[in-house]
Amino acid sequence: MIHECLGGWQRTCFCNQITPKMDGKEVVVTGFVRRVRNIGKLKFIILGDREGSIQITIRENEVRKRVLQKIAKLTRESTIAVRGVVKANNVVPEGVEIIPKDIKIITVAEVPLPLQISDKDVSSLDTRLNWRYLDLRKPKNLLIFKIQTAMEMAMREYWIKNGFIEIHSPKLMGSPSESGAEVFPVVYFEKEAYLAQSPQFYKQMAMAAGFDRVFEIAPVFRANPSHTTRHDTEFTSIDMEMSWINSHEDIMKFEERWLVYTLKKVKKQYGDEIKKVFGTELIIPKLPFPRMSLKEVYDRIKDTGRKVSYEEDLTPEEERIIGKIVKEEFDHEFVFVKEFPWKIKPFYHMKHEENPNVTKGFDLLWKGLEITTGSQREHRYKILVSQAKEKGLNLKNIKFYLDFFKYGCPPHGGFGFGLTRSLMSMLNIRNVREVTFVFRDMRRLYP
Amino acid sequence: MIHECLGGWQRTCFCNQITPKMDGKEVVVTGFVRRVRNIGKLKFIILGDREGSIQITIRENEVRKRVLQKIAKLTRESTIAVRGVVKANNVVPEGVEIIPKDIKIITVAEVPLPLQISDKDVSSLDTRLNWRYLDLRKPKNLLIFKIQTAMEMAMREYWIKNGFIEIHSPKLMGSPSESGAEVFPVVYFEKEAYLAQSPQFYKQMAMAAGFDRVFEIAPVFRANPSHTTRHDTEFTSIDMEMSWINSHEDIMKFEERWLVYTLKKVKKQYGDEIKKVFGTELIIPKLPFPRMSLKEVYDRIKDTGRKVSYEEDLTPEEERIIGKIVKEEFDHEFVFVKEFPWKIKPFYHMKHEENPNVTKGFDLLWKGLEITTGSQREHRYKILVSQAKEKGLNLKNIKFYLDFFKYGCPPHGGFGFGLTRSLMSMLNIRNVREVTFVFRDMRRLYP
Repeated sequence: MIHECLGGWQRTCFCNQITPKMDGKEVVVTGFVRRVRNIGKLKFIILGDREGSIQITIRENEVRKRVLQKIAKLTRESTIAVRGVVKANNVVPEGVEIIPKDIKIITVAEVPLPLQISDKDVSSLDTRLNWRYLDLRKPKNLLIFKIQTAMEMAMREYWIKNGFIEIHSPKLMGSPSESGAEVFPVVYFEKEAYLAQSPQFYKQMAMAAGFDRVFEIAPVFRANPSHTTRHDTEFTSIDMEMSWINSHEDIMKFEERWLVYTLKKVKKQYGDEIKKVFGTELIIPKLPFPRMSLKEVYDRIKDTGRKVSYEEDLTPEEERIIGKIVKEEFDHEFVFVKEFPWKIKPFYHMKHEENPNVTKGFDLLWKGLEITTGSQREHRYKILVSQAKEKGLNLKNIKFYLDFFKYGCPPHGGFGFGLTRSLMSMLNIRNVREVTFVFRDMRRLYP
Repeated sequence: MIHECLGGWQRTCFCNQITPKMDGKEVVVTGFVRRVRNIGKLKFIILGDREGSIQITIRENEVRKRVLQKIAKLTRESTIAVRGVVKANNVVPEGVEIIPKDIKIITVAEVPLPLQISDKDVSSLDTRLNWRYLDLRKPKNLLIFKIQTAMEMAMREYWIKNGFIEIHSPKLMGSPSESGAEVFPVVYFEKEAYLAQSPQFYKQMAMAAGFDRVFEIAPVFRANPSHTTRHDTEFTSIDMEMSWINSHEDIMKFEERWLVYTLKKVKKQYGDEIKKVFGTELIIPKLPFPRMSLKEVYDRIKDTGRKVSYEEDLTPEEERIIGKIVKEEFDHEFVFVKEFPWKIKPFYHMKHEENPNVTKGFDLLWKGLEITTGSQREHRYKILVSQAKEKGLNLKNIKFYLDFFKYGCPPHGGFGFGLTRSLMSMLNIRNVREVTFVFRDMRRLYP
């Protein structure tokens, strides 16, 4: 099998950076062979890299025999490097082609490919996930992760501008966090440890430590056996926590501004591509976002003739309905839902002063999909202990956490934000598997 | 126990932002009670927040009785909010004090405190880690995480400027990555999973997927039973991988520029504080960093009269020695060590074309501490398989990984960079526990 090394060549540009204006200029491009065509004494290679593709046009009488011999062995998706001269050409789609001086064959791909590297590929989702690294070569899939990169960077910029400290909280815990349900046990030397289901306890520890404002983007783990379009056993959680708030309203105010900043940045960089590739407009939401109590939400859903249970969390179906109602009435894709019953929220949510049956918590929905849960936390030691008891928690397991609140703690709150869920909403993608780099659920631990 | 809520107050500034120029201005400050002193009819509270501290001066005849009664119950580290008027005062260290109009007691801290909130605290390291959230209230400790935040943000900025895509690779794996030694098993429903020891396989998958350049900052897990000053079972790994390189030299060139960019940013923001608090100058390293082969390193250490083994990795002691030699000879704190024997490096390192007994890998030492391991990777399927066999790996376990290289792959390489180790070097801190937000080793799973 042929495999050459780059031999000192350095890529001069991505394929999409080559324009007719560069006519006559020598370039080095590198990438995957998307197609090879032979028309008599003419050979065409479509070379693709991360940013685009370009035609390499080879006239048999213009290149050395050695180069022709190498090209003859090329298969789709082989990797090559091409040194050649740019030629403006109206006939090719890009308006430009490369006339090669030399070509290096880096690796020759096996045939046949398990799937086609094209946005038109019709392989099953399972096949695509089995060959995820080939699936990700498709421009549409790659674009998702470029958007993700821009989104996360904008989020961090906003945090940094607002005085947040980045933390890396431990994912190995001595006892199961929160309820103890759906937690993965780890064989930890002679003991057992547990994988963190959220950075909740440690974000709050940072508040007790006087960090004042923190953020973390990191994996969390949930032993959820569901096989749905929106559940996984490992995902990236985007978390923040801030001190000296008056109520959860301060957290919502922060989140909506943070999101507007982020979406503006994403739109500036990728708005056009999102429209072209995903057929949806990235709309910058108006401030403030609409806010509704859970009761109001249920009243509105009831108005549509459906049966509702005021004491339970919204079902995915109910989320979609309220998303539509909000879009129609407020012309808004987002809605904060608040005043959830205490009985369906975790013990660390602060109870509402005016109505202790509901908490000072909220969810944020985007296009009818929950992307955030947040709240003001209970920072008063004795009240927190009694709330944990009320929920029937094993106090021994969470003693280390309860201790955080013994020696002075500011009032604080925060939220967790789902990276993949927000990408699903933004790009109108229905399955979390499509927006996860490498997906994990009960059935899937590979690749 | 008293606990008030903020009642609509909003902090106007951090303590260090209050200057004598603000004389007469009303402010709201919030934080921890660092000290209370009574001198006759005068009471002084030293209030501390994340950025500094300020004196609150209370004259008995100037405040309402209710406020005095509240203050009487204050203990150290209680949290309070103060609304008051700034008064320039040459006598107090900050040159300024606050005359309160009203004070709200948010939480009253229990007494006695398990440790003193002061950089002069002499508690044992174990006590400090048991009460980590109190330990982190010390200004010196908090500063470490501000520096960490600036460092990571600068790293990401440089990556983004250079076209890198951010990835979140899975931490749950179907088979143990790399050697299988020191891996944590996870009870994964009816199966077993393993915690990722590094994102290595998935960074390389991204290269096979045509992502071209990726970075990730995320936790990794190593079941290392050592109890040393530089080992832990969970730490933050800073990783990058890039395609279309000629050799590991391209990776070293990238890393040194990336580090200079990062350290310049950190120095600009925290250089003075680092000098004042940690007593060390953050020196911006000259480009290029010195490079030595492992053989040269051993020759130099041998010259000092020590016994050396040319075929093994450097010991911590040997790293320190070469760090000193490099500092003396090149006036440089960094050194790239390369040409490590193939037999002590992982199977995916590319062997050197000119000498297959060494790899195209490198380590980077900072002040005699290894902070990076990197290499060009072997991207040619058949050679990679034979290298895995040569190392005696179970090919079945890594089949999913080997498959990445079957259908075309660019030449690529990258490095892993230790966040905590670089902070240790930068700040002359000798124990990794000091620079880890919440530390984990065989003995410690709490808090």
